[in-house]
Amino acid sequence: MEIFWAYRISGDVCFLDADESGHCVRVLRHRAGDEIDVIDGEGTLLHCRLTDDNPRGAQAQILSAVPEWNAHPYNLSLACCPTKNNERFEWFVEKASEVGVDTIFPLIGEHSERKVYKTERAKRIALSATKQSLKARIPSIPEPRSVKDFLKESRDGLKLIACCFEGENPRITINEALAQYQGSEITILIGPEGDFSEEEVALAVKEGYLPISLGASRLRTETAAVAAVMAVYLRAM
Amino acid sequence: MEIFWAYRISGDVCFLDADESGHCVRVLRHRAGDEIDVIDGEGTLLHCRLTDDNPRGAQAQILSAVPEWNAHPYNLSLACCPTKNNERFEWFVEKASEVGVDTIFPLIGEHSERKVYKTERAKRIALSATKQSLKARIPSIPEPRSVKDFLKESRDGLKLIACCFEGENPRITINEALAQYQGSEITILIGPEGDFSEEEVALAVKEGYLPISLGASRLRTETAAVAAVMAVYLRAM
Repeated sequence: MEIFWAYRISGDVCFLDADESGHCVRVLRHRAGDEIDVIDGEGTLLHCRLTDDNPRGAQAQILSAVPEWNAHPYNLSLACCPTKNNERFEWFVEKASEVGVDTIFPLIGEHSERKVYKTERAKRIALSATKQSLKARIPSIPEPRSVKDFLKESRDGLKLIACCFEGENPRITINEALAQYQGSEITILIGPEGDFSEEEVALAVKEGYLPISLGASRLRTETAAVAAVMAVYLRAM
Repeated sequence: MEIFWAYRISGDVCFLDADESGHCVRVLRHRAGDEIDVIDGEGTLLHCRLTDDNPRGAQAQILSAVPEWNAHPYNLSLACCPTKNNERFEWFVEKASEVGVDTIFPLIGEHSERKVYKTERAKRIALSATKQSLKARIPSIPEPRSVKDFLKESRDGLKLIACCFEGENPRITINEALAQYQGSEITILIGPEGDFSEEEVALAVKEGYLPISLGASRLRTETAAVAAVMAVYLRAM
């Protein structure tokens, strides 16, 4: 199934950017009059008819809409410290997008090897994985911020921080934490290569986060992040 | 923590191959007399003293052994059809090894895009991930065989086949299948890009496999394989 993404919708008209238009018109050879499926990136699938087959800026008219198309029954924010190796973090972005995640917050931790992060490539990967896995909501990927700044932001729902050590508050497993919670708003923090610092975890606890363990295996950052998304996804099965 | 792997153990002597020896002696500059940790690849961690610091073939004497070091409480065989793109399958091999898997069977399905598979690179990745994640058992990766041949091999324990369609036998979720089973021997089949064929699933059912769903998301082969390993790992948490 081919899906395109509209960067802008105005009334009943969808606008495709240069990348999407090129793919639609040049690669897949669609022409004005063809019916195409377009996602708005925010949950809705739009059945459309191509009206302008400009390969640099195509336009289509909306015929009908399917709200919450293939939506998952939770709102998951995965806040993770990007790894020094960008490819590893990008695998996580792709897999999280396929499985189902709503927001990926790149964070810079005290022990992060990567202190600077540009979201552009991750956003392209998230878009591509969203289309490939037949979803209509593209995970949003905000600009990076420090772990401490993120912890101080007000958030609803279940808030978990995965760390490898036992701080003052003993950890519970991610399964136990999810089993205790009836709602659907979930935030999970995954630390950098060097783990969260004791101060970061103490601040998290103060801000209402539960320290959790992701099991007995020693997982890389990007693997831990995928494990966390999988735990939420499997719970919702 | 540094770990090395011995390809051969004879009495109380460990033998490191050229790769391991080079890493031990040239890169990490160990010399005869140093104490080093070595895994036998089959579950045991050996505390050793380096006796021969030949960078092409080091040897060490075993001082003590820790059996079942960091072992996971299940025996999981993940039989998966390698993807056309080797990188994707290798990403799964790395992640499965980090999390905990015992055997990865590469299979060739009727709808596989990849009809031939060489296990060499996967074995190197499994070894590397095993050491990095502080495990002593390296997942074994036998030579590929067809899905049908694999299905006819006699296997104990819980046997699951993940497919995207409802055949004659309705699927249950992987969670339900795992919840119903008290034991620790688990085999899960993951199909190729084009899914398993109806004949393959019918044969699986005849051979005692339960058809399962991996949830609502449309996952790539390698993502599905990681999801299956995660489900078993999380259940054992």
